[in-house]
Amino acid sequence: MTDPLVIFTPSGKRGRFPVGTPVLTAARQLGVDLDSVCGGRGICSKCQITPSYGEFPKHGVTVADTALSDWNSVEQRYQDKRGLKSGRRLGCQATIQGDVVIDVPPESQVHKQVIRKAATARAITMDPATRLYFIEVAQPDMHTPTGDFERLKRALRDQWQIEDLRADLTILSKLQPTLRKGNWQVTVALHHDHHKGPARITEIWPGLHENGLYGLAIDLGSTTIAAHLCDLQTGEVIASSGLMNPQIRFGEDLMSRVSYAMMNPGGDREMTAAVRSALNDLATSLAQEAQIDPALLVEATFVCNPVMHHLLLGIDPVELGQAPFALATSDSLSLPASQLDLTALNPRAQIYVLPCIAGHVGADAAAVALSEEPNKSKDLALIVDVGTNAEILLGNETRVLACSSPTGPAFEGAQISSGQRAAPGAIERIEIDPITKDPRFRIIGVDMWSDDPAFAAAAAATGITGICGSGIIEAVAELRMAGLLDPSGLIGSAEQTGTPRCIPQGRTHAYVIWDGTAEGGPLITVTQGDIRAIQLAKSALYAGARLLMDEMGVDKVDRVVLAGAFGAHISAKHALVLGMIPDVPLDRVQSAGNAAGTGARIALCNIAARAEIEQTVHQITKIETAIEPRFQEHFVAANAIPHATDPFPELSQIVTLPQVSFNTKGQEPGRRRRR
Amino acid sequence: MTDPLVIFTPSGKRGRFPVGTPVLTAARQLGVDLDSVCGGRGICSKCQITPSYGEFPKHGVTVADTALSDWNSVEQRYQDKRGLKSGRRLGCQATIQGDVVIDVPPESQVHKQVIRKAATARAITMDPATRLYFIEVAQPDMHTPTGDFERLKRALRDQWQIEDLRADLTILSKLQPTLRKGNWQVTVALHHDHHKGPARITEIWPGLHENGLYGLAIDLGSTTIAAHLCDLQTGEVIASSGLMNPQIRFGEDLMSRVSYAMMNPGGDREMTAAVRSALNDLATSLAQEAQIDPALLVEATFVCNPVMHHLLLGIDPVELGQAPFALATSDSLSLPASQLDLTALNPRAQIYVLPCIAGHVGADAAAVALSEEPNKSKDLALIVDVGTNAEILLGNETRVLACSSPTGPAFEGAQISSGQRAAPGAIERIEIDPITKDPRFRIIGVDMWSDDPAFAAAAAATGITGICGSGIIEAVAELRMAGLLDPSGLIGSAEQTGTPRCIPQGRTHAYVIWDGTAEGGPLITVTQGDIRAIQLAKSALYAGARLLMDEMGVDKVDRVVLAGAFGAHISAKHALVLGMIPDVPLDRVQSAGNAAGTGARIALCNIAARAEIEQTVHQITKIETAIEPRFQEHFVAANAIPHATDPFPELSQIVTLPQVSFNTKGQEPGRRRRR
Repeated sequence: MTDPLVIFTPSGKRGRFPVGTPVLTAARQLGVDLDSVCGGRGICSKCQITPSYGEFPKHGVTVADTALSDWNSVEQRYQDKRGLKSGRRLGCQATIQGDVVIDVPPESQVHKQVIRKAATARAITMDPATRLYFIEVAQPDMHTPTGDFERLKRALRDQWQIEDLRADLTILSKLQPTLRKGNWQVTVALHHDHHKGPARITEIWPGLHENGLYGLAIDLGSTTIAAHLCDLQTGEVIASSGLMNPQIRFGEDLMSRVSYAMMNPGGDREMTAAVRSALNDLATSLAQEAQIDPALLVEATFVCNPVMHHLLLGIDPVELGQAPFALATSDSLSLPASQLDLTALNPRAQIYVLPCIAGHVGADAAAVALSEEPNKSKDLALIVDVGTNAEILLGNETRVLACSSPTGPAFEGAQISSGQRAAPGAIERIEIDPITKDPRFRIIGVDMWSDDPAFAAAAAATGITGICGSGIIEAVAELRMAGLLDPSGLIGSAEQTGTPRCIPQGRTHAYVIWDGTAEGGPLITVTQGDIRAIQLAKSALYAGARLLMDEMGVDKVDRVVLAGAFGAHISAKHALVLGMIPDVPLDRVQSAGNAAGTGARIALCNIAARAEIEQTVHQITKIETAIEPRFQEHFVAANAIPHATDPFPELSQIVTLPQVSFNTKGQEPGRRRRR
Repeated sequence: MTDPLVIFTPSGKRGRFPVGTPVLTAARQLGVDLDSVCGGRGICSKCQITPSYGEFPKHGVTVADTALSDWNSVEQRYQDKRGLKSGRRLGCQATIQGDVVIDVPPESQVHKQVIRKAATARAITMDPATRLYFIEVAQPDMHTPTGDFERLKRALRDQWQIEDLRADLTILSKLQPTLRKGNWQVTVALHHDHHKGPARITEIWPGLHENGLYGLAIDLGSTTIAAHLCDLQTGEVIASSGLMNPQIRFGEDLMSRVSYAMMNPGGDREMTAAVRSALNDLATSLAQEAQIDPALLVEATFVCNPVMHHLLLGIDPVELGQAPFALATSDSLSLPASQLDLTALNPRAQIYVLPCIAGHVGADAAAVALSEEPNKSKDLALIVDVGTNAEILLGNETRVLACSSPTGPAFEGAQISSGQRAAPGAIERIEIDPITKDPRFRIIGVDMWSDDPAFAAAAAATGITGICGSGIIEAVAELRMAGLLDPSGLIGSAEQTGTPRCIPQGRTHAYVIWDGTAEGGPLITVTQGDIRAIQLAKSALYAGARLLMDEMGVDKVDRVVLAGAFGAHISAKHALVLGMIPDVPLDRVQSAGNAAGTGARIALCNIAARAEIEQTVHQITKIETAIEPRFQEHFVAANAIPHATDPFPELSQIVTLPQVSFNTKGQEPGRRRRR
């Protein structure tokens, strides 16, 4: 008689096994992804499966009611104590008695897939660096004396095939009481090295640990620090939070922080202490929000730009402020959280910092590459992560280029006369009627346009307070589309434009979006200075992209991906009118959300992604904008709106830009091009 | 024409090399041990060699004056700046021009041998874990951006074939200024893992580091902490020092310290803090004595018994106080000094703790095994390390056994009525005239016997203050030889012995060695209680040895090695009379000095010794005296002096022991046998 046939779904893996083989054993031999923390002892319940009975013509089997063994005492005890979902069995206890079809539900898979939230979602496969192992450790024997740790190592080798193991003194000092408290059964959390180095014990608990494991994916930006607290077993994001980077008090942007370090002995250490303290606060508040013990935070991954990277690590960033912009280290870093004074986490939590690409292209850009995978793209993708600096990636599966471009903070609403951060009351969208030249707009926190009769009442709570980053981009683009702004970037006078909203301001003009002065509110305008700031920013962005296109030998790209929290809110049409990005069909402009943060999450949830991005960054060609003469040429040409020389054929199919010129003084606006 | 023949002495290695080959290159290709820190750049001078000229019939060559190249500018500059010994050349600069005989002086050998001080000296081959490497690091290039650390790694790979390297954040944070200060030339101290793990950067200096590297070999005893400060390049012991273990205030012996930890919550942490603080003091004072920067202390090795081991590591030793005497960890430990709060060393110094053999047989016993190598002995060696506990090893190249026996502190002069530590004024040697029954003795610090007319004057400086460990052993043995003590351990009365020096003391008697009371000094006697204490100690030692002999299936051994600071001072004849050790010919009793400390020094100076002892301890069979019923039998039988039943034929050839008995009360002295 042949052995029974076992078919696993959804994998479709099948094989024949002797009567009496536990389902978990069959799954392991076939390489079916079926979880188990307790190693088949019937106590962790991670290996739950659902047998199917009846006729399966597709598989060519008939499954009898007796295909699996009856419930045994272990399974019954589990059922009585904790309960199993209807139809479920414990894979380690149920044994094969006849042909059977067995479904492995998603929650029983180790490598379950987590769907990312963003619209362009791709799944993250769970394969975290830190995992739980339940073991039974042999008791000490005076006749063959070995240490408790040596017997624990042997248990992990025999029961889980883990060969190379390390534990620090804090684990060794709690090992003996924990083993005895657990009656020689313990659960260990092991951190696996993605370069085949030894595994490390992060934590040890008596008996079966059932309170999970968690990690933080941290996007450490110059302005904000954003973190997700993720369940390392399910991949679920349990809590997300962000706070201001306290280093702002030492300098708004990167170079001012580098300057602070150069001018003030010990300044780098002040900034390092500030950011580490903020990270501890963030970890503590996230753990509170998630209602978990902070000691269960056993990992964190970091993405950040090079200056943040060095200041996080306690390295003076002074070399990053001057050519040749040498990083102290560019490779990824795996280190204990204690080296970063991250005391809010488990004392043995492990940190992974993604690799940097170059002195100006940091681990944040690497994270974008990990998330957006230009190196796997069939078409040519231009990925821009817009922030105070823009990280730009251009590539496809044959080659990827990267650079960073100093856009400055204008895109974030800073250095704009009425600019403000994206907060309730800020104008985030705007339209200007090309006939009446009057605007309508929306503010953050109110779900209607300003020409809605109910708007005034709805806006009363916050007031109309300023313009945020996406709002200023739309405003400038709308001014251009409405014929109030000429290609050189000059705002016309009331006479030239026929609207009293164009008011004189010194020797230039400003456009009034909202006059709240009668009610004690602000006068919200777009000034000539604002236009210049946006022109500088968008020219830098466009010039960076063009430089990569030159290197790639192309003059158009197949698609543009806007990443960064800000990128999610940019209108593609307005970005094209402004000439921020190269001309592409409107539907080929995609938003990737916080791609850097997603990259941090991927690295947190999937250990193989670490080796992958380390390899990818070595294959990326870096272009240093600061020393490339063509960057200046591209920058100057990109000053015009949308561009002085590059045609925008795709844009012109959807928008006709008025041919106006407001230059009456024979002055070239180009004289302001200096950066 | 054939290439010139190059013959190196003392190795005798020879080969032919093209004209123009540098001597260093030839040496490396032949595997000749010729040092170089700078990698052949003519700046470190470690590769000095001495060419010999003239006829060498033994080698079959004639060496012409032109056999090596003329001095080049690099060599000349070195000569002008630092000077070379007459006849010396730099091996990396001098090139081969003809047949030549080249001597490599000992100081130019990496693996030079250091002769140990003890009489039974065996050489230690230098091959330390931490070594210096001079490298030239490529400067950063914006066009192929990599981190400074990545270029340093590449330099070590290209220039020294070191593949796998780690550096912690404290190194990364000083890397950039150091590279620039050294004009891209730096010296790194690398710690190599003896299990093929990655090397770690311990320190980095700009340019060529010429101030050496040092390490500490530490014998952490229950009573004293002894340390040698060694030059890790030459192997030389630069300074040695010792201090009392401050844990003594928590308990004199091991078990009282374990009790302290059990009775006082946090007591283990107090003892850990105390010993670590003492170690820092010791390191600081040794560095001062050696006149070196403590930051040059890059390594330390530790040997200690299991309780000291756990308390050093911060592990509660409570399990060591009760069966089954489970160690938290028995394997060796390699860890950063910072984990032990050893702040007096280089902040990245690496610690190596030798493996323990069992719960009662610690890293100190492993160190004795490393030093004395019973596993390589052709004859059967019994090695006893005498201290508060005696570590006992028995074996030869086929098998090694080990146990620990609780001798108590009597052998160290403690719990002896007139006992004291070995210090000036202490009686260390004694002879009792068998006719007159009068003693003569020597004290520490005076180089003559007490019957010398000049003795009184010489002893006045210190006085005669007590008896140290070796003195009490000699005293008891001499009492037995002079017929003042019977085999059961009873001191006779003045009537029984015929000497007024046997004075009554309660119901027993004491023997007066020195009466200094007339001058306000002490009355130094050996009391019946002292005899009992020594009997307990020697019975425990002998019983342990016998237990191992039983296991080995022998009733005699070929030689006895007495280790430990105290072992160095024991008279072999007196030890045999006492029955401390099994009967062997007198000349087969050897002293090994502080073998445990020597083991620590070997592990410090030779990385291969670490893997060796780790393997050796796994092959040692451990015997647990505490649970072995025969131990009690052997202990009781060993109470007699020298022994109740075992014959001592070798001893009887040199000493005839008087057959006396002072038991007049029908009392068996055996009733005091309890431990």
